[in-house]
Amino acid sequence: MQLLKDRIRAEGKVLPGNILKVGSFLNHQMDIDLFNEIGREFARRFADVPVNRILTIEASGIGIACIAAQYFGVPVVFAKKAKSGNVSGDVLVTNVKSYTHNTAYDVIVAKEFILPGESVLIIDDFLANGCALEGLIDLVHAAGAKVAGAGIVIEKGFQDGGKRLRESGIRVESLAIVERMSDAGEIDFRDE
Amino acid sequence: MQLLKDRIRAEGKVLPGNILKVGSFLNHQMDIDLFNEIGREFARRFADVPVNRILTIEASGIGIACIAAQYFGVPVVFAKKAKSGNVSGDVLVTNVKSYTHNTAYDVIVAKEFILPGESVLIIDDFLANGCALEGLIDLVHAAGAKVAGAGIVIEKGFQDGGKRLRESGIRVESLAIVERMSDAGEIDFRDE
Repeated sequence: MQLLKDRIRAEGKVLPGNILKVGSFLNHQMDIDLFNEIGREFARRFADVPVNRILTIEASGIGIACIAAQYFGVPVVFAKKAKSGNVSGDVLVTNVKSYTHNTAYDVIVAKEFILPGESVLIIDDFLANGCALEGLIDLVHAAGAKVAGAGIVIEKGFQDGGKRLRESGIRVESLAIVERMSDAGEIDFRDE
Repeated sequence: MQLLKDRIRAEGKVLPGNILKVGSFLNHQMDIDLFNEIGREFARRFADVPVNRILTIEASGIGIACIAAQYFGVPVVFAKKAKSGNVSGDVLVTNVKSYTHNTAYDVIVAKEFILPGESVLIIDDFLANGCALEGLIDLVHAAGAKVAGAGIVIEKGFQDGGKRLRESGIRVESLAIVERMSDAGEIDFRDE
């Protein structure tokens, strides 16, 4: 998605540790016009599969998922992060490792909000090592539903999450795949 | 807003400790059609004041703020919760007490995303004791901007946040004000 790649090149900041800061439009300040273009593009790419529901994870996936949902006409559910062991009630739980912060946390969703047999589209802002996305996929499967695919805004193609998930049979559609970032701030995208 | 009150009566669950669960449409599963009606109503109520930016706080305010922003044509910024003392860089910080969880946390926003002189509309899903909202107001003032008002989906009118904020001069527009909830699940709204 050229509009998105141009924006990443113009405003993205590369920091040590392969961090790409895009807080000016994606995950701190949010450009709603851009989100609408992103939502339209997800709808175009997933036009050939049924989507009954969109699932995302707090916090930075929520805005994108809500705007995108307008093009699918479905509700959004956001999975919540909880301290491991601090979960009760009628919920689905999975544990996610965070390599960035060297911790683990539970991700939960109420059972009543993903129904057996549904086709669930997962949307998130970033895909890197894929652990959060795998957690969401676990939740969908635990609910007896199936994953329509994963719509990702920015994939870090130099980390292995996207490759591993595609090899496992998940359809991953990333609107911008960063192949390489340099400390000088240069960003190369896949397929350019 | 009658549509919202009807939905709260139909699906809201009253739990001990004055908890009102509305996860089926507001803050776990999110009904995007309802969010659009909410956004339209906020735009109608705040039509007479300039709004340069919408500010909310993670996580459950984000979806409502993003959908509402479409009716204002402005970007959204969400303030982030951080462990107290775990903040660095060019950010505005304020400390918020959580009576519900008997803790305190820092709320931060990057300085570059609220500019001096701007008129900022704050949007959130709930207003109870008002501590989170007061934190957001502090951040707006610290940025040298002014508060256009606060758009709240559900206010717990039997807690004192709304009263205190209105007395301090903040324009608070709550789309449903719960005056009383009973353990049997009855919900009374103000002005009915």
